[in-house]
This record gives sequence, structure tokens and C-alpha cells, in this order.
Amino acid sequence: MPSDVESAMESLILVFHRYASEEGGYYTVSRDKLKQLMKTELPSYLQAQKDPAVIDKMMKDLDASGGGQINFEQFFCLIAGFSISCEKAYQMKLKKTKKK
Amino acid sequence: MPSDVESAMESLILVFHRYASEEGGYYTVSRDKLKQLMKTELPSYLQAQKDPAVIDKMMKDLDASGGGQINFEQFFCLIAGFSISCEKAYQMKLKKTKKK
Repeated sequence: MPSDVESAMESLILVFHRYASEEGGYYTVSRDKLKQLMKTELPSYLQAQKDPAVIDKMMKDLDASGGGQINFEQFFCLIAGFSISCEKAYQMKLKKTKKK
Repeated sequence: MPSDVESAMESLILVFHRYASEEGGYYTVSRDKLKQLMKTELPSYLQAQKDPAVIDKMMKDLDASGGGQINFEQFFCLIAGFSISCEKAYQMKLKKTKKK
């Protein structure tokens, strides 16, 4: 049985490849597919955004080459940003429960 | 129900905190706890390593301050490295199955 970390890593790889397409041997996610991914995988984040251009800004931050596609490494940076923010929120929750 | 990405992020946060201890309001994982984490969460990687100092080298790479502790962001960099290698292996597997 895979460990929690192995399952989490596998899950992130499979989600990326659910939205990725292959061209010239490279697997990447387009802007439109990133929008679909975000709607399905991180709906609460997307709904909380007032800025309709949030996906375009995300792509701009992630897609260094400007080709309109992101690879797995760039996708993982996106997930890292969300995870680090969530972990900070989790820490605050821990500190609150400790004060009680 | 959480999405696959939400579950994976939550899982990585909970695993980190399973091994982390709190000091001065900061949650970090020590070298010894990192070794335990690796043994439980990524056993096949650890067993494949010939170098007994692999954990010390990992700490050196991750622990920029040299305080012998890693925070969640540094832990996430470790997971990123493994995930990116695994995804490359996954891509090769996909390409092989396509050639058949």
C-alpha cells in the first residue's frame, strides 16, 4: 500500500495528466485546460477571486516562456503556493486551539 | 467532498505536521524526524540509497539556515523534487505504451 506522501504525489501527477496534452513529446496544460482544472480541483479558490483575469495572471506567472502552456514543474509551483498558504492557515488554527 | 488536489495538499500538510514540533510559534521537522518520515513515507527511495549520509545531505540541501530543522516550504521543495522525477518516469511509461 502506498504511503500518504506517495499517494499525494501520484494524485498530483495524475491530475496534471488528466488535463495535459502531448505535443512533440512534451506534456503541457493549456490556459483553457488550466481553467477547467482550477474549476474542478480548486473551486473555492476560483470562486473567491473577484478578478476575471485570474487565470491569465496565473499563466503569466507560471509560463516563463509565454507559450501559453505549463509543464508539470510549473504546475507543481502553483500547487506549492496554495499548499504553503493552506499550511500557514493550518498553523494559525493549531495556535488558536492551543490557546483554549 | 474534497477534490484530488485538495486531498493531496491536505495529506502533505498533515504528514509534515505528524513529524513537526513547535518552538517559538514555528513548526519544523528535525533531522531525526525527517529520517523517520522518509522511512515511513518514501521507503523505496531510502532503501535504494547506498549513501548512509543521504539524510544529512538532504538536510544540508534543504536547511538553508543550517539550524538542523526544515519548515513546510522546505519540506515541499523535497516533495517537489521527488514528484518531478516521478512524473518524468510516468511520461516515459506513457511514451512506451504509445509506441506499442
